[in-house]
Amino acid sequence: MIAAPQTQTHALRFEILYQSKRSRARVGRIHTPHGIIDTPNFVAVGTNGSLKTLHNHQLDDLQLMFCNTYHLMVQPGTEVIKNAGGLHQFISRQQPIITDSGGFQVFSLAYGDVAKELKGQGGKKHSGSVLKITEEGVTFRSYRDGTKIFLSPETSVAAQKDLGADIIIPLDELLPFHVDEAKLKASFDRTHRWGLRSLQTHLQRPQKQAMYAVIHGGTDLKLRQQSCEILREHAFDGFAIGGSLGCDHAQLFQTVAATTQYIPDDKPVHLLGIGDLISIPQCIPHGIDTFDSCYPTKVARHGMVFTQQGALKMTRKIHEREFFPLEEHCLCATCRHYTRAYLHHLFKANEPSAASLASVHNVHFMVQWMASIRMEILCGLI
Amino acid sequence: MIAAPQTQTHALRFEILYQSKRSRARVGRIHTPHGIIDTPNFVAVGTNGSLKTLHNHQLDDLQLMFCNTYHLMVQPGTEVIKNAGGLHQFISRQQPIITDSGGFQVFSLAYGDVAKELKGQGGKKHSGSVLKITEEGVTFRSYRDGTKIFLSPETSVAAQKDLGADIIIPLDELLPFHVDEAKLKASFDRTHRWGLRSLQTHLQRPQKQAMYAVIHGGTDLKLRQQSCEILREHAFDGFAIGGSLGCDHAQLFQTVAATTQYIPDDKPVHLLGIGDLISIPQCIPHGIDTFDSCYPTKVARHGMVFTQQGALKMTRKIHEREFFPLEEHCLCATCRHYTRAYLHHLFKANEPSAASLASVHNVHFMVQWMASIRMEILCGLI
Repeated sequence: MIAAPQTQTHALRFEILYQSKRSRARVGRIHTPHGIIDTPNFVAVGTNGSLKTLHNHQLDDLQLMFCNTYHLMVQPGTEVIKNAGGLHQFISRQQPIITDSGGFQVFSLAYGDVAKELKGQGGKKHSGSVLKITEEGVTFRSYRDGTKIFLSPETSVAAQKDLGADIIIPLDELLPFHVDEAKLKASFDRTHRWGLRSLQTHLQRPQKQAMYAVIHGGTDLKLRQQSCEILREHAFDGFAIGGSLGCDHAQLFQTVAATTQYIPDDKPVHLLGIGDLISIPQCIPHGIDTFDSCYPTKVARHGMVFTQQGALKMTRKIHEREFFPLEEHCLCATCRHYTRAYLHHLFKANEPSAASLASVHNVHFMVQWMASIRMEILCGLI
Repeated sequence: MIAAPQTQTHALRFEILYQSKRSRARVGRIHTPHGIIDTPNFVAVGTNGSLKTLHNHQLDDLQLMFCNTYHLMVQPGTEVIKNAGGLHQFISRQQPIITDSGGFQVFSLAYGDVAKELKGQGGKKHSGSVLKITEEGVTFRSYRDGTKIFLSPETSVAAQKDLGADIIIPLDELLPFHVDEAKLKASFDRTHRWGLRSLQTHLQRPQKQAMYAVIHGGTDLKLRQQSCEILREHAFDGFAIGGSLGCDHAQLFQTVAATTQYIPDDKPVHLLGIGDLISIPQCIPHGIDTFDSCYPTKVARHGMVFTQQGALKMTRKIHEREFFPLEEHCLCATCRHYTRAYLHHLFKANEPSAASLASVHNVHFMVQWMASIRMEILCGLI
């Protein structure tokens, strides 16, 4: 076990209840000022402070919610949220929240779809919204009103202080997948300098927030190791695996496996932007504690719901007369009240409530599935 | 008081608790197999068996919901709903439901937007979806798959028997606003023949459903009187005022006033498709008991919310920092949890939850407003 520096803010306490003997998987609890996150767990994405189609009191069993600083900077502005008493107060959520740095979205505008880019699927579109990237930070134009916004490690932390999430993340530079080694290394070094500037800014005024380091290095396993070795020397409260994780599941799992072994065992580990049904069970044995993804709500809006027997496409004719719930013993509000046949009908009739009912179920499914995974770890199965 | 024939099915019982001494307004209770409707009351429209953006368990204080037979015939088909155990079961609503005959939508397809036509605002578009109108009924093409559907008084009642709503409505013929007197009179006579055929079909198998007559006559007050005189001789459980109600509020109020005096006092009176903030208080003194309208949910989706101080457009900048509820003492789920500032933000960020939160509030507002109107009647103010 690699010991971590004892200087962090203790806004967050990670309690490991059980360490698997078969793998790096563990069952734990992240204690935050807004309550406990049982780990491993799923983190739903509510970009603008709301899960798509849902309101925040429909989600009592969701322990951690991910909000996007970039979006909240542009609308309504973090200063408005600060005035409201912080993000929890503004969006009326009592449970823990994590915010990102804003970097992902800014660079997404520069390189097209970063999510695709990170998987090597993107083109090389430059929308022109990023005006300048320097050592200081990045200047971009708001997609809403064209105003210039300067995002630096310091301004990102300041924005996240305004928001007041339980867990915050330092600004990192994201590169397209297809870059040469020299560019990757230069970006790698800058991202770590930005990470430490972020931490320094954060520690001046911790405000009971915790900061996770972002581990970079793309699919270069040596760089990933080096990233961990740099970051673990500093007082981060946890670690997030960011940057490009390759173009397929195999590369993702390889990168995750190669990275987590260099992360101190006693710190929570988050995998940024990954939370699909295939990746989660593959990554947990490598010691990933939390996963964020908009996948469950996104596919719900297109009529896909998760069940233990696999995903169902609710628009299919086969569901027309299924007068029973999506899942027989599911306790979500959708399954307690409505049938597959009704959901099928709502999707066919283009009723907006269809997406919302499917989203309620999918988020509940993820949360329950993670609970069953914790049980499997405790039973020695993972 | 005009006595009604004593042959109705008693599936519905209308209890008048208080008759105003100042006007025809009254406070009552409609007893149905699925519970009580306090009157006067607002009836929200859930065309496809769901209020737009809401699910049916978000609406516990809504006593009566209006569903559209035409839409449910086309999708999922009334036979599917019958198989589910009826509409209440299918959409998971325990409280009363009213369905229309399907006529409004069929003729809407023939004459463009009937809602506009009835107000004299429409053009004379013929989409060709109505293939034939005869004494027997109307043949039209489904907008979904082009299949021919025959709607007659008998098939409409049969469809509404499949659905099993507490209150059903006979098929009527709707004409554009701009027709000559001869056409109006021919349609008037046919609609009454259709009404009696509907009643006859219904009474063969009442199934604990109640049937309201539809009063026609357009803005011709003599015809309205004649319509009441014909219909009140038959065993209808209540009366719905249908057809064209004129092109402005003045004509609407005049028509309503001229009509209700010929309706038996001891029967509930519904005003079809009217439920806006101006019409309701004007129509209640004339003895209207229930109003249906999609207005509160429709405007909610466009950012308008109702308050005692008038309607608010939530996208306006003025709401950006209003860190208090839409209405200070409102007990709806939206006001209990969220602020105007948050709703403003969700609308500005195009979050689908914005429409749903505004709809929850507006429907609750209507229901509460009707409760306060009942109180005003009881206090002798209306």
